[in-house]
Amino acid sequence: MYYEAVSQCTRVLGNIGTWLDKAEKHAAAKTFDVNILMTNRLAPDMKPFIYQVQSACDYVKAAAAWLSGQVPPKHEDNEQTIGDTRARIQKTVAFAESVSGAQYAGASDRKVSLLSASGKQLGGKDYLLQIAIPNVYFHVAIAYAILRHNGVDIGKMDFLGPVNWIDP
Amino acid sequence: MYYEAVSQCTRVLGNIGTWLDKAEKHAAAKTFDVNILMTNRLAPDMKPFIYQVQSACDYVKAAAAWLSGQVPPKHEDNEQTIGDTRARIQKTVAFAESVSGAQYAGASDRKVSLLSASGKQLGGKDYLLQIAIPNVYFHVAIAYAILRHNGVDIGKMDFLGPVNWIDP
Repeated sequence: MYYEAVSQCTRVLGNIGTWLDKAEKHAAAKTFDVNILMTNRLAPDMKPFIYQVQSACDYVKAAAAWLSGQVPPKHEDNEQTIGDTRARIQKTVAFAESVSGAQYAGASDRKVSLLSASGKQLGGKDYLLQIAIPNVYFHVAIAYAILRHNGVDIGKMDFLGPVNWIDP
Repeated sequence: MYYEAVSQCTRVLGNIGTWLDKAEKHAAAKTFDVNILMTNRLAPDMKPFIYQVQSACDYVKAAAAWLSGQVPPKHEDNEQTIGDTRARIQKTVAFAESVSGAQYAGASDRKVSLLSASGKQLGGKDYLLQIAIPNVYFHVAIAYAILRHNGVDIGKMDFLGPVNWIDP
């Protein structure tokens, strides 16, 4: 389940690429610079769009790494444009997809330390369910909300992406 | 994992109770009717706060039911006030918590039909990972964003709720 759960988070992160395509179309139609959306926020004391994407990326990257017994690669938070944002997502997806299902063996027995929680540890399952998944979806959904609030024509299906329906 | 995953979704849904407490404090401090927030939306063509909560509730309820071999109980969407909203959450949490870990046995072998997808089916694992979890977090995060956008003093920790840190 760990492999599939992280893979699903990775796919949802990748869906942001479609939203960025639609953001570009929206900006072109309204003749504004699409990068204005990259620094937009839902509240003055909330973080902007690029941060939401960076953070979602970091939670996906960390989940793929820690649950497969690796130290997450370092990705600098230096994105400024929509192009940078796409590249950050692609780099994260490439790393997450480089981890095979077999590498997640024993994930539930791993102890994960969070740098942001001053060395506190939690078990692999709690890390996946209480930290990784909620944080990925939180930041992806807030990124979605920023674009949607600004008129970008995205919908729930763009959030969810493809579903593995069973062929009848 | 199914039991724990649905339990975590249920806890996150329950966290909204804390946000509603803070919404009431905010409304009292600013002397406006807190129910104004219940119909607020992030965009004119997005659904309001109460709908976001109803929808999150329905995805939690459906996951707890379908994955344990039950038909979800019907909950009418007739909430109008913050009190109604609290009651809807409590009713949903009570149902989800009524399902024991043992009842999720064989969840991955179940086929789930979605009414909203004209009878299409998907397997238990895909239903959990591609429909239930993403939709619960989507609607909970949008509900959070509506309150946050309106100045309610909630933060990421209110979204995540308690984490099972390992005692040192």
